[in-house]
Amino acid sequence: MPELRKDPITGRWVIIATDRAKRPTDFITENQPVKASFCPFCEGNEDKTPPEIFAFRKSGTLPNTKGWDVRVVPNKFPALRIEGDLAKRGEGIYDKMNGIGAHEVIIETPRHDISLTALDDGHVQNVIRTYRDRLRDLKKDKRFGYGMLFKNVGVAAGASLEHTHSQLIVTPVVPKAVIEEMRGSEAFFNYRGRCIYCDMIRQEIETEDRLVFNHNKFVAFHPYAPRFPFETWILPKYHASHFEDLPDSDMEELAVILKRTLLKLEKALDYPPYNYIIHTGPFDKANMNYYHWHIEIIPRLTKVAGFEWGTGFYINPVPPENAAQFLREIKI
Amino acid sequence: MPELRKDPITGRWVIIATDRAKRPTDFITENQPVKASFCPFCEGNEDKTPPEIFAFRKSGTLPNTKGWDVRVVPNKFPALRIEGDLAKRGEGIYDKMNGIGAHEVIIETPRHDISLTALDDGHVQNVIRTYRDRLRDLKKDKRFGYGMLFKNVGVAAGASLEHTHSQLIVTPVVPKAVIEEMRGSEAFFNYRGRCIYCDMIRQEIETEDRLVFNHNKFVAFHPYAPRFPFETWILPKYHASHFEDLPDSDMEELAVILKRTLLKLEKALDYPPYNYIIHTGPFDKANMNYYHWHIEIIPRLTKVAGFEWGTGFYINPVPPENAAQFLREIKI
Repeated sequence: MPELRKDPITGRWVIIATDRAKRPTDFITENQPVKASFCPFCEGNEDKTPPEIFAFRKSGTLPNTKGWDVRVVPNKFPALRIEGDLAKRGEGIYDKMNGIGAHEVIIETPRHDISLTALDDGHVQNVIRTYRDRLRDLKKDKRFGYGMLFKNVGVAAGASLEHTHSQLIVTPVVPKAVIEEMRGSEAFFNYRGRCIYCDMIRQEIETEDRLVFNHNKFVAFHPYAPRFPFETWILPKYHASHFEDLPDSDMEELAVILKRTLLKLEKALDYPPYNYIIHTGPFDKANMNYYHWHIEIIPRLTKVAGFEWGTGFYINPVPPENAAQFLREIKI
Repeated sequence: MPELRKDPITGRWVIIATDRAKRPTDFITENQPVKASFCPFCEGNEDKTPPEIFAFRKSGTLPNTKGWDVRVVPNKFPALRIEGDLAKRGEGIYDKMNGIGAHEVIIETPRHDISLTALDDGHVQNVIRTYRDRLRDLKKDKRFGYGMLFKNVGVAAGASLEHTHSQLIVTPVVPKAVIEEMRGSEAFFNYRGRCIYCDMIRQEIETEDRLVFNHNKFVAFHPYAPRFPFETWILPKYHASHFEDLPDSDMEELAVILKRTLLKLEKALDYPPYNYIIHTGPFDKANMNYYHWHIEIIPRLTKVAGFEWGTGFYINPVPPENAAQFLREIKI
């Protein structure tokens, strides 16, 4: 059973993955990425993954066979386990609990494509619908506090398989990064009576300096203080705290702006390694007036070194205004 | 002039390095590490760095010539500039200031050694003395708030030059990561009346589960909730909030425990890429009863992916108890 342990100083939680525990010697050679000859996510290999949880399928096809467009399976090497109790307990001055949660993989296409942008708009829309519906489903489990959807692309961004896929990790506690965003945006709301994200959206659309796309209901821009070169955020222009409340009517536009933003980044930076993460409100809160869900896309072009780990400061060699200008010149 | 920009939501500061601004196209090829044929840190190349700030030298030798053991120079591509005013100002809802600070490089030996552990104990002691004295010196500048000493080893840990060296970055604001440590340790102190680090040291020495070295005045152990496999902390066993107050009498023992810990990690993990960071109290505080300076060593064996960036959670596949057991069997 994996353990969730809390750093008593900063309150940071760490998942000690005892199940998939590696021997220290495993690290000596593993930094070399292995080009896998076999892909468990490709069509025809459905029996090489744990049984599917959900799929968009051609009618008449059976689970765990061919005929799907988007497929969700449990992670074969999950960071957290779905069965069991939290069993919160202490260990001297330290705190821990069992590593209970969910860890699912969203396989975005049966083809061995390596980019979401290779899919047509309707297909991307089904990926987003899958994100939303899996989150809605897991939210019903009262043991859980938070669900994080994310995507790793490229070895440098932590992807271990090429085939385009996303992941959903559901945790029993609300992550520190989300607590910080909530704390900051709540303080702003208490002082100004407005959502800070709504204010940012207004200023970014007005100045255009860091703007990437301004669609009808969604906007994409580089944040004012980006940690990474070409870091890009996508937000709904209307106030909404929870991604999983996304109405069907907005699904298409979100798919389009996400795909177009990724296309621009891929073309500008020659298919960089990247992560994107959907930041949404915690499970136990509804319609928060101060928090605003958003997607953060972070190309992984710079190395994170001692200074960043020690300070939480970041050094970014590309001003976001330059990034925006460069992207504007990229035709997709 | 570089800019310090604040993320208005989380309060995270980012250094936008406009001076060393890269063109976006620079990123396309730069992920390949270049094996440099020329090393500006080697003896005889003293004129290839900015003029030295400090050096341990043979008596009679001139600055910026041969004859040194440890040499400190300004970073040729500094993240922050030493001259100028902060000029704090707003930009709509955002906050920024000029990127004023210091960015120095501590070249630990004239030889092209790639590990600090190749140096003899007395030499390592001089490196530590240099750390302390540079920090003491920069602390006198009232524009500055914090000084962070750190070391990057290996390309995966962000090192751009092989020759063994450390860096000191002094910032006008106290970094978020330090504020978090202070906030957490102060809350503990207010509740229990004790330093949480002192409590941890006591428990780690008592249980021995995660212990690496227990010397007379210093201890090295893996923390209970390590973010990274083999993450190791070194702390003074007596309470002290500021590294730069280290007395001469403790210098030798610190050099020995640091070198021995690095030797163990190098031997166990076949010279892994790593960072170490000295966490000390802010400049404007003295003798804090709740904060305890320490060194964090983080081998970079795992990739940080979307989940970690999004949550601030970490997944660590090696329980620290296993790491400690493994290290105990490594003879140095």
